[in-house]
Amino acid sequence: VPTDAPASVADLGEFGLIDRLAQTLGPSANPNLVIGIGDDAAAWLPSPRCMTVATTDALVAGVHFDLATTSWEDLGWKALAENISDVAAMGCRPRYALVALALPANAPVSGIEAFYRGMRACGERYGCSVIGGDVVRSGAFVIQVTLLGESLPMDAGPDRLLLERSRARDGDAIAVTGPLGGSTGGLRLLLGQATASEARVAEELMNAHRRPMPRVQEGLALVEAGVRCAMDVSDGLLADVGHICERSGVDADLDASRVPLYHGLEAVFGQEALRLALTGGEDYELVCAAPPETIARAGELLAERGLGPLSVIGSIVPRTGVEPRVRAFQSSGVPLDVTVGGWDHFHGG
Amino acid sequence: VPTDAPASVADLGEFGLIDRLAQTLGPSANPNLVIGIGDDAAAWLPSPRCMTVATTDALVAGVHFDLATTSWEDLGWKALAENISDVAAMGCRPRYALVALALPANAPVSGIEAFYRGMRACGERYGCSVIGGDVVRSGAFVIQVTLLGESLPMDAGPDRLLLERSRARDGDAIAVTGPLGGSTGGLRLLLGQATASEARVAEELMNAHRRPMPRVQEGLALVEAGVRCAMDVSDGLLADVGHICERSGVDADLDASRVPLYHGLEAVFGQEALRLALTGGEDYELVCAAPPETIARAGELLAERGLGPLSVIGSIVPRTGVEPRVRAFQSSGVPLDVTVGGWDHFHGG
Repeated sequence: VPTDAPASVADLGEFGLIDRLAQTLGPSANPNLVIGIGDDAAAWLPSPRCMTVATTDALVAGVHFDLATTSWEDLGWKALAENISDVAAMGCRPRYALVALALPANAPVSGIEAFYRGMRACGERYGCSVIGGDVVRSGAFVIQVTLLGESLPMDAGPDRLLLERSRARDGDAIAVTGPLGGSTGGLRLLLGQATASEARVAEELMNAHRRPMPRVQEGLALVEAGVRCAMDVSDGLLADVGHICERSGVDADLDASRVPLYHGLEAVFGQEALRLALTGGEDYELVCAAPPETIARAGELLAERGLGPLSVIGSIVPRTGVEPRVRAFQSSGVPLDVTVGGWDHFHGG
Repeated sequence: VPTDAPASVADLGEFGLIDRLAQTLGPSANPNLVIGIGDDAAAWLPSPRCMTVATTDALVAGVHFDLATTSWEDLGWKALAENISDVAAMGCRPRYALVALALPANAPVSGIEAFYRGMRACGERYGCSVIGGDVVRSGAFVIQVTLLGESLPMDAGPDRLLLERSRARDGDAIAVTGPLGGSTGGLRLLLGQATASEARVAEELMNAHRRPMPRVQEGLALVEAGVRCAMDVSDGLLADVGHICERSGVDADLDASRVPLYHGLEAVFGQEALRLALTGGEDYELVCAAPPETIARAGELLAERGLGPLSVIGSIVPRTGVEPRVRAFQSSGVPLDVTVGGWDHFHGG
């Protein structure tokens, strides 16, 4: 067994690998953490009066990511960012992550370490520490991240300081925290399916795909402003507004001309840009619904904090059928014919 | 798409599958749960003054389990039980579980539902609810469970009411909460590698493998009695005492004749029974270390509560070398020659 430069995780063994990864992560800066990596479980003191939130996501090589277009380090960032975004979409702060890796025996140690460096960079950006996990041998490479977060401290009243999918109501305005389509546009560039004339535009789009920025501060501000319904745009705007409609028992009408497009998207993709913004996934902006005056107040709070802008893109309307319906209207008033194309992991996406 | 009897998860789709699994689980009985399955994250109110603990485990088909010897329902029980045991080994109560499944598209819906029934049965036994998760398509079948638990309420003082691996000290007695070797003995029977003359003995051993019982009440009682060091016997007694020694900077001497053997183990396996008890994994008893008078008090508390017996099997001794050393002595005083054989997922176990 070589000790200075192990090539694969099989050279290092499970416990050797865990030691290295713990070193890569470094100690947690969170003073409430009591026990990190190395015991039967991690342990921490939750903040008083806060709710704890928890979410988990599994990523499979060849299905959810491709190391041909994503570096190990970016993959680490994305795996954590995707889960941080779910916590942001609850209006909560990310705190702790647990990471379970199912790895082929020939997985390169240098790659796994770069993956952990990427997670560490993302965690430091958002105040979130990797505090435990598991590594096991497997035929497939599967990454599984669990994220624990905390709500704002609860008031004395019964009001839940969370952003829930089920709380959209007829007459609510629908708004997004930032431009859409950047991640899917960047992926097209990375795959060589498109070219940008400006290098800086191409770089920004590819970065939107490689290092997405979850909207944690935006989610907290939405809750503070009184918004109670939101989710993150991970499957694509139309699909995700559909999820809100399904859980809330409503429909939604969107004004396509008001959907903010990622910088440079139109320059590169022309007329296709709108479709990318409506159906492309992994933008991790927040889409929310609330009475128009609440949305206005939220927009002001975001602006005060140097966040946003919060763009109103449509409204919640009563449910007309059994299935939720999300329509995107052109400025002519004619509904766009866009297939939702939300990602379904078994029907093939 | 058939709707009444879908054969595979591909027939049902991701969201159809999630709906079915949520129905299989039923509502949570935990009044502190605010949001369960269906939003970006689950949310709950942590108990005042309790620490939160979190652990995660990944199980890979063909590596950690085999559906030839384990039913889907037993697999669900075991996947949850294994994680509940880690929480028990911290001296905490299990509360919530998140389950991420990476599934081949041809995975049978009936099997996945049976898996969730098994998790539900185990969760109900231990007061723990599955509150969220993820299902994704994959070449390999990987089960990943994250368990959240709570410590006993903390006293005003700085004492951590947890069972930690790092707190064994020279002179401590080592004790286990129950008999060992049952799970690995049962597996041998299931694989046809051994036969039992008594059917009832065989059934008990196989049940020890199929439906292990984590020691949650025992862990809580150990903490209450003042014990602060323990872990669960998952890799095998010698390997797991080795983990405690490594983290605590000590060695351990065990008295092999005092290691309790699972009922019927000696009848079926003769002289090999002791080796199975010392090196067999997945028994999920707790092994703890504490000053002898604390262990005696813990034994009394367990007996009062109808738990235990707590068997003293050895003692912690000073570290002699760089690596931790765990020796098992025969009654003659001669050390047994037993390879630790702890499970290392990459070196091949």
